[in-house]
Amino acid sequence: MTLATADPFAWIDAAAETRQRAGLVRTLRPRPADSGLLDLASNDYLGLTLDPRVTDAAAEAARRWGGGATGSRLVTGTTELHAELERELAEFCGAEAALVFSSGYTANLAALTALTGPEALIVSDALNHASLIDGCRLSRARIARAAHKDPGAFRAELASRSETRAIAVSDSVFSVDGDAAPLAELAAACRDHGAALVVDDAHGLGVLGAGGSGAVAAAGLAGAPDVVTTVTLSKSLASQGGAVLGPRRVIEHLVQAARTFIFDTGLAPAAAGAALGALRVLRAEPERADRAREVAHLLADALRAEGFESSEPDAAVVSVRAPSPETAVAWAAEVRALGLGVGCFRPPSVPDRFSRLRLTARGDLTDDQISWAVSLLSRTAPEGARRDG
Amino acid sequence: MTLATADPFAWIDAAAETRQRAGLVRTLRPRPADSGLLDLASNDYLGLTLDPRVTDAAAEAARRWGGGATGSRLVTGTTELHAELERELAEFCGAEAALVFSSGYTANLAALTALTGPEALIVSDALNHASLIDGCRLSRARIARAAHKDPGAFRAELASRSETRAIAVSDSVFSVDGDAAPLAELAAACRDHGAALVVDDAHGLGVLGAGGSGAVAAAGLAGAPDVVTTVTLSKSLASQGGAVLGPRRVIEHLVQAARTFIFDTGLAPAAAGAALGALRVLRAEPERADRAREVAHLLADALRAEGFESSEPDAAVVSVRAPSPETAVAWAAEVRALGLGVGCFRPPSVPDRFSRLRLTARGDLTDDQISWAVSLLSRTAPEGARRDG
Repeated sequence: MTLATADPFAWIDAAAETRQRAGLVRTLRPRPADSGLLDLASNDYLGLTLDPRVTDAAAEAARRWGGGATGSRLVTGTTELHAELERELAEFCGAEAALVFSSGYTANLAALTALTGPEALIVSDALNHASLIDGCRLSRARIARAAHKDPGAFRAELASRSETRAIAVSDSVFSVDGDAAPLAELAAACRDHGAALVVDDAHGLGVLGAGGSGAVAAAGLAGAPDVVTTVTLSKSLASQGGAVLGPRRVIEHLVQAARTFIFDTGLAPAAAGAALGALRVLRAEPERADRAREVAHLLADALRAEGFESSEPDAAVVSVRAPSPETAVAWAAEVRALGLGVGCFRPPSVPDRFSRLRLTARGDLTDDQISWAVSLLSRTAPEGARRDG
Repeated sequence: MTLATADPFAWIDAAAETRQRAGLVRTLRPRPADSGLLDLASNDYLGLTLDPRVTDAAAEAARRWGGGATGSRLVTGTTELHAELERELAEFCGAEAALVFSSGYTANLAALTALTGPEALIVSDALNHASLIDGCRLSRARIARAAHKDPGAFRAELASRSETRAIAVSDSVFSVDGDAAPLAELAAACRDHGAALVVDDAHGLGVLGAGGSGAVAAAGLAGAPDVVTTVTLSKSLASQGGAVLGPRRVIEHLVQAARTFIFDTGLAPAAAGAALGALRVLRAEPERADRAREVAHLLADALRAEGFESSEPDAAVVSVRAPSPETAVAWAAEVRALGLGVGCFRPPSVPDRFSRLRLTARGDLTDDQISWAVSLLSRTAPEGARRDG
């Protein structure tokens, strides 16, 4: 076969077949508006997605400002609503300024590319989120991978560098097991070596810190001149989008230099409205953040009491180990059929060789719902899921 | 100063000073909901952003489905609304299948990374959009830059490659001057060399093709087995988000392999609703696309009649050359103060050394509005803006 007659996508069929044989095919399952499931699979940590104060704010913003932002933030895409969201978000997290993006992914790409470059070093936690890894790749900086949550490893990379500029970057809470990074120690390592710290607080905002003000505030780093935080609007804040928070000069620099800010359409007004609505609910009801953390501990303790290997939750994510990828999938499917939605993580999407179910400790769960979920997981557990086998 | 006491962001102040001196500072100007401006600056090509059928659809989707999608498309982030939008979008553009993303930027990153890799060649038009360039960088493929809109240059790069896999990638309509790529010739070059063609139809969807079905359909390539189209929901479709359209096996592959699909939260329901609302308006009123093209020609002709150097519009963008960066900025500011919003492009955001104003030929503009805009631009034109000086 010559190239001239080749099918340019023939390789896709081969890749699909390999995936099929390995049992690694991912399937999109469109959900109805009212599935009747108890949802422990989403990232709706505060249970605000369907709160009328959030959805009304989204609806009102769409009606007032339109279906879209109509252009790049630098042309027509910045409304007074975007500015309002940025002000309130910065204030809530104790940062000087904030800049809102169309997604957390593009916010992370922006922070890592605009704050580094070919003359910089980025030290990156080995288990950082895909968007941080892609930001590293796009940055043209030299990338050093540091052992997971190991300030000494970060310190060693920063100390031995030849680059004049450096940043360290870490998730605040890692999404699979819900374990937290040692942010204060990472910041100290950065300061000792003239580096800045970039923290992705996607899973910390709304859950950690006083009233849900986030992991950076919880670590005493709010407003620090050498710390930049990225957040998502799509988890605790029940919307879509992302933001970068930090010193005003850093935010101003992103406006000038971040390609995913300059060349992307601004966040849709409805999403800005929903996030602002959720932020105001959280300010009015700060106990929601405490409850999310409490639910996580109740869930983890109850699962351990049933003999399961549960993660120690630092935020609002609890994972439970399954004996194999196949049993994990079957377990998740069985509880789903009985009315409980849970996440299911298998290699290669896990940091080790262990498959697990991932449970979201939503702050609006009742004690009864927690008990029901745990008893259902217990009744359906595959052989080998319990520590005692 | 030792590294230990260094300010890790001191370099930002230096960069800001350089930018200030060069007159290249970009400023965010939050706009009110009702500015009273005649908007020729946005990308709202069909004038649908504030159409009640669009904003009602956004509001209804937020109320029914929630403020956000709650998770990755592969976990909880795919609703029946997303599936409906994907079906209608694919059908409208004549593609087998479609996949919706949170932005056009992430859709482009997805297509370029998931369809290539270190073993592939990407031939990329020299003036492609930033998101395509970033997609190339992320892909790990070898990148060959081809001269702007030159099928021969694409052909030469494809012919001389050693890689077994290759794609060519081009914007359908280039955003600064609104000029169109020779898609049929590019597709022929790809076919002759066993390559696939990826087209970013951000500025073509809703404007080109029968009833606004896009540049790919207009070139007779709808449904082609070796063509993949990316679109945005944030221009003609008056919302936010992006999509990839193409053969079903390609779309299925993106679900399995595209990092910006797998690791990003799904598009917010309100944005999916708004885009679906706009798409249905366009289907019901296909003359909107014709009118956008007609407005572009009326604008360009009237500007030329006034002696200006206007681009020849292939879609709904018209640019007018200004004598210098400074006069371009002043001209845009002056018409703005008098009620007309226009875009202003200066080096280095232009493909050449010429600054220009960029006008959006919105399909809902009346002949009177066009005349008023042109006469205002004429009255305020800086010296040197006309061909005759």
